[in-house]
Amino acid sequence: MLDQRTGPDLTIEDVRAAHARIKPYIHETPVLTSSYFNELTGAELFFKCENFQKAGAFKVRGASNAVFGLSDEVAKKGVATHSSGNHALSLSYAAGRRGIPCHVVMPRTAPEAKKAAVRGYGGIITECEPSTTSREALFAEVQAATGAEFVHPYNDPRVICGQATCSLEMLSQVDNMDAVIAPIGGGGMISGTCLTLSNLAPDMEIYAAEPDQADDAARSFRAGHIIADDAPNTIADGLKVPLKENTWHFVSNFVTDVLTASEQEIIDAMKLTWERMKIVMEPSCAVPMATILRNPDLFRGKRVGVVITGGNVDLDKLPWTLG
Amino acid sequence: MLDQRTGPDLTIEDVRAAHARIKPYIHETPVLTSSYFNELTGAELFFKCENFQKAGAFKVRGASNAVFGLSDEVAKKGVATHSSGNHALSLSYAAGRRGIPCHVVMPRTAPEAKKAAVRGYGGIITECEPSTTSREALFAEVQAATGAEFVHPYNDPRVICGQATCSLEMLSQVDNMDAVIAPIGGGGMISGTCLTLSNLAPDMEIYAAEPDQADDAARSFRAGHIIADDAPNTIADGLKVPLKENTWHFVSNFVTDVLTASEQEIIDAMKLTWERMKIVMEPSCAVPMATILRNPDLFRGKRVGVVITGGNVDLDKLPWTLG
Repeated sequence: MLDQRTGPDLTIEDVRAAHARIKPYIHETPVLTSSYFNELTGAELFFKCENFQKAGAFKVRGASNAVFGLSDEVAKKGVATHSSGNHALSLSYAAGRRGIPCHVVMPRTAPEAKKAAVRGYGGIITECEPSTTSREALFAEVQAATGAEFVHPYNDPRVICGQATCSLEMLSQVDNMDAVIAPIGGGGMISGTCLTLSNLAPDMEIYAAEPDQADDAARSFRAGHIIADDAPNTIADGLKVPLKENTWHFVSNFVTDVLTASEQEIIDAMKLTWERMKIVMEPSCAVPMATILRNPDLFRGKRVGVVITGGNVDLDKLPWTLG
Repeated sequence: MLDQRTGPDLTIEDVRAAHARIKPYIHETPVLTSSYFNELTGAELFFKCENFQKAGAFKVRGASNAVFGLSDEVAKKGVATHSSGNHALSLSYAAGRRGIPCHVVMPRTAPEAKKAAVRGYGGIITECEPSTTSREALFAEVQAATGAEFVHPYNDPRVICGQATCSLEMLSQVDNMDAVIAPIGGGGMISGTCLTLSNLAPDMEIYAAEPDQADDAARSFRAGHIIADDAPNTIADGLKVPLKENTWHFVSNFVTDVLTASEQEIIDAMKLTWERMKIVMEPSCAVPMATILRNPDLFRGKRVGVVITGGNVDLDKLPWTLG
């Protein structure tokens, strides 16, 4: 049991420094609106489109901040990580931009499109079983063999600080938001959001959204300590990982609530977003919209930032075409 | 045989007036770029994203210009059209915004998503067989019964003038383009592009792109007169209709060349664009990219505007998931 209320020593100046460091390697992604979804929800929604981000996901922010913050001495042995996909892609991209090797341990069950994309960016993949236990064990071997710098997908202060640049941009793109909602897996995006907003907009509500079938963050939030599941099963494959001490710090101190949605609600919200907004996004990104539709009273009349976290989907295996 | 070199009496001032008239009802759609596609093609590509347009397609420009240009006297009987889909949707949307009825004759084989969307905007559908002959016959009946104003999907100067506002926006969004490429079906978008560019940027190349399996525009272009096919078969369902005298005028006078691509090239380009640019677009929109990839020497080193014409896809029937 872990009830940690103190966290990594990060300030808003660290976030601004991260933004300056990574700017050459990332997009300032657009914010889209949809009159259809505004009418459907009674809220004003502002979609921060990190699916249009370099490497197809917000995770390139944290990965780039980690990679470009390394000394030359450390960088030359490369970086290494384990990831359910987008962090792997993003770290490979950032390492490629710096010209250093990137070692990735990822589940053999990860979408083929993600594996191909990691290799496309020059990442070196070692496959593990789809459980946190297997992943961490195999990773230790890889790291010992290479001496590469470990960049955790979300429990790393450099990564949290990089993800925090997303809400920093949102604040400059959208006036007077009442709330921000983002998916929560390990909690990197939500922690970065908390880091920025608790400093610059402390009255803004922060909602985390996750699948009913991977609701460890919701249960942790209510219990007051981290509850971790090994290998939960959900279509939102980016949200299967548990909170860790650094992300728990932000979740426990700054999150307004953790909301959940069923698999069918997630699939329906995903398909509806593709149909009406004409954007390709991952199942994970549909979880916030699914929870908004499940909790209409919570959002009606509010100006809400919705983080569309990534767009790396296996187009041959769309959830609504599976039997 | 028709070899018409004189066309509708439209000026660039008509285009500017159309833009002012329709502005409250349309989006100024964004222009996206992709370092992946730039590297792949050796060109600098600027994607004008009309898939993000109101009603999901550029056709709302022409439809809105026609609907909002009507006198109250004419408007009160409503509007009517036949369409393979997006014009139907767009005219229904524009008529709904003006509060007048919209009668639509459309093929029974049109995607269900499009039919549902037409009805969602308040359009009244009469279904015909998937051939130009059947469509035009049934339409005459509907028009006689209602007295509604006919707005042709593309052969109407009001429609051409509305579509011309798309390239007007592109000129203000992208500097120094060398060429613009757009899909060609009936030729409404291409004609509008010709109208704007022949006046404001006469040195800019204008390429039209169509499927090998519906290459009537390419054959017309080479023959010097309109060649019309009845009911060609292609995945690019928006591009099955033939040129008419008003669009032939622009195609024959101002188009640089008409390029074609195979069904497989179109499907591959569509999937690749979804994967890399994270946008939902119709098969028709993939035809320009497919022809750019087939003719790399023609575009290498150039700054090329690519019109992504629409995003209304039946997500249950994606071409790469069909057997």
